[in-house]
Amino acid sequence: MELLKDRIRTDGRVIGNDVLKVDSFLNHQLDPEIMRAIGHEFATRFADEGVTKILTIEASGIACALMTGLELGVPVLFAKKGRTRTQGEEIHTAKVHSYTRNETTTIMVSSRFLSPADRVLIIDDFLAQGEATAGLVSLVEQAGAQLVGVGIVVEKGFQQGGRLLRDRGIRLESLVIIESLSNAGIRFADEAITTVQKG
Amino acid sequence: MELLKDRIRTDGRVIGNDVLKVDSFLNHQLDPEIMRAIGHEFATRFADEGVTKILTIEASGIACALMTGLELGVPVLFAKKGRTRTQGEEIHTAKVHSYTRNETTTIMVSSRFLSPADRVLIIDDFLAQGEATAGLVSLVEQAGAQLVGVGIVVEKGFQQGGRLLRDRGIRLESLVIIESLSNAGIRFADEAITTVQKG
Repeated sequence: MELLKDRIRTDGRVIGNDVLKVDSFLNHQLDPEIMRAIGHEFATRFADEGVTKILTIEASGIACALMTGLELGVPVLFAKKGRTRTQGEEIHTAKVHSYTRNETTTIMVSSRFLSPADRVLIIDDFLAQGEATAGLVSLVEQAGAQLVGVGIVVEKGFQQGGRLLRDRGIRLESLVIIESLSNAGIRFADEAITTVQKG
Repeated sequence: MELLKDRIRTDGRVIGNDVLKVDSFLNHQLDPEIMRAIGHEFATRFADEGVTKILTIEASGIACALMTGLELGVPVLFAKKGRTRTQGEEIHTAKVHSYTRNETTTIMVSSRFLSPADRVLIIDDFLAQGEATAGLVSLVEQAGAQLVGVGIVVEKGFQQGGRLLRDRGIRLESLVIIESLSNAGIRFADEAITTVQKG
């Protein structure tokens, strides 16, 4: 997705060899027009899948998931982190380890909102080690729903998450795949290194 | 906002005397069309204010804030909870007490995204005791930015948050104001009690 690559080249910042900060438009400050374009792109790629529900995880997945749901005309469910209080409700839960923060958290959805009749598209902003996505896939499986695929805004191709999903036969659509991050800059899949801002 | 009242009457659920669950369309599962209508309504009410930035708080404020920002054509900044790691960055922080969870958390924004030139509209899904909103107002003040007002989807009129904001002279636009919740049902401002689902 060239629009997104251009924005990353302009506004992305590399910290060390594995952190790409895109907090000016994707996961702290949000550019609504970029989000709309992202939603349009996911909706187009999964248009023929009969999607009935979008599933994402709070907080930074919500914006791109919402725009995808708007375009596909289906509800968007976001998994909540670190909460297991249920007020008597049935929930599905999964454990997710964050390598960035070195902590394991439980994510949950109310079972009222995922049924065996659902055809679920998982949307998230980043895919690195694949822990959060695997947790979301587990929630879909627990509900007995059908997973139609996973849409990711930025995949870190040098980490294992994408390979793990593809090895399981899950359809993965990443709008941008980054092959490497370093002091020299950022390299998108099949492209040369682009110099971006540091720190 | 009649569309929203209708949806609350249909899908809202009352727990005890102070909890209204709207998790089927507002803060766990999201109805993108309702979110779009909410964004349109806020954008219309604040159209003449020269808004340059929307500020909200993760996670459930993001959807309505994003739709407002899309309609007004301005970026949306969401404050993060419980994080004070900065990677060397300047941040603004505020403490927010949650009566629902009986815990105090720190919220933060990067100071890069709020400047004295900004005219900020705060958007959130719920206003009860007003703690979260007060924290967001504090972030705006720390940045030296101008607060043009606060847009709230559901105000609990029987709690103090709305009064506190109005007493400070802050323009508050609540799309729905709930006067009371009880076993008998829900009463919107200036209306009779409507029976809704329990629990």
